[in-house]
Amino acid sequence: MRILITNDDGYQAEGILALAKALKDIADIVVVAPMSEMSGTSSSITIYNPLRFKVIDNDLGIDIFAVNGTPVDSVKLGLSKLIQGKIDLVISGINNGPNVAMNTCYSGTVGAAIEGAIWGIPSIAVSIGGYRDLDYETPAMFMRDYVQKLDLSIIDKGSLLNINVPNIPYKDIKGYKYTSISTHSYLNNYEERADTFRDNYYWLSDYEKEGTHEDNSDVVALDLGYVSISPMKASLVDDRLLLKLKNQN
Amino acid sequence: MRILITNDDGYQAEGILALAKALKDIADIVVVAPMSEMSGTSSSITIYNPLRFKVIDNDLGIDIFAVNGTPVDSVKLGLSKLIQGKIDLVISGINNGPNVAMNTCYSGTVGAAIEGAIWGIPSIAVSIGGYRDLDYETPAMFMRDYVQKLDLSIIDKGSLLNINVPNIPYKDIKGYKYTSISTHSYLNNYEERADTFRDNYYWLSDYEKEGTHEDNSDVVALDLGYVSISPMKASLVDDRLLLKLKNQN
Repeated sequence: MRILITNDDGYQAEGILALAKALKDIADIVVVAPMSEMSGTSSSITIYNPLRFKVIDNDLGIDIFAVNGTPVDSVKLGLSKLIQGKIDLVISGINNGPNVAMNTCYSGTVGAAIEGAIWGIPSIAVSIGGYRDLDYETPAMFMRDYVQKLDLSIIDKGSLLNINVPNIPYKDIKGYKYTSISTHSYLNNYEERADTFRDNYYWLSDYEKEGTHEDNSDVVALDLGYVSISPMKASLVDDRLLLKLKNQN
Repeated sequence: MRILITNDDGYQAEGILALAKALKDIADIVVVAPMSEMSGTSSSITIYNPLRFKVIDNDLGIDIFAVNGTPVDSVKLGLSKLIQGKIDLVISGINNGPNVAMNTCYSGTVGAAIEGAIWGIPSIAVSIGGYRDLDYETPAMFMRDYVQKLDLSIIDKGSLLNINVPNIPYKDIKGYKYTSISTHSYLNNYEERADTFRDNYYWLSDYEKEGTHEDNSDVVALDLGYVSISPMKASLVDDRLLLKLKNQN
């Protein structure tokens, strides 16, 4: 098995290195990741600027390419130019912080996995459910186990898995659950502050709107100590509303 | 009716002004849009920098706010801080160039409309199906008609419409079709070029992969001279794959 690993925290991030180390004995690994921090970049692409890459020396014995672009740029350039031969699986992560609920829309980690799905390759985004004192050993060990037993053919073309692993020791993980994505919104609030010249600026805050997460959702599973695995589609088409709109005519 | 208009080409773009002019007699309009060109920014958000806004003088008699961020930043800051009172509809556009097939994933125009849907507001992205000699009159007139007869309650919470209008005179438009999103991929190719110092760089090209667009797709409707209206969901959850994964256990 040949795995393309990417992320949105940059090729030097602790999470991507933990993932590469955990998987390198069970698969051929190639890393193509952004040169710098790209959190919150969703599925954005570089249109008006050129892309360049650097080959990164490393002691892991794997190919690491750093791209001066977004996570999606890295996957695109990797698959079209940098990598020779077939990729069986794209994994994006391990992201430092959870990607759950409607925040999945903004995530560069998820964006990279969506790109893999657009290319028709089974793809996985993986994130850790905490912000401080992160233990990447747990998600790395989980992914090593999960990837070995996953039947890649079950992931439909154009689909991907969004995995969130609780930030607790591996032995305390209760198992994993296939979940839906909470429809709850985060990140809709700004703090208003003043700068040196007393002009106002606005800072996005991780404010949680009131509301209840659905029982079968990613957020609830993670809170209960389970690994949450949410199947997603690259295409946003709303088949139910399409039928409704067609029938009204 | 009160409409928030935004885009990804910037508040000064011809398309957004054409849209605002066409709608200002049938609704209260407020424009909150990026200060600069933001094409290809998808649903990206500004996390590590502050947002600021400018109030823009104009002779349209409407409020125009320019935000130093992405389309999603503009919608978020608009809805949480800049706009007083309720917004009934978010419209993002008119984008200069089509947003069809899997390119919808990268579109800042679509990203802004997804954000409106996340806030629970009926939302529409609108783009023109051409790149040169654009006639914004056609999509502007279409939107003026369509918005007046659209029953907003038919758009489910969390859903949006992605509209593409052919770049032809309004009288030549054959009508509109509710469509699916073509699963065809564009933008997966890079041209390799050399710079002044003979170092290579890569430039994303609008290369169309071989394959056939589905009969009921946005691309086919647009090519046939119809306005394409594709219903979309903000949430990417894949319910079918979720069921399949749960049943295998």
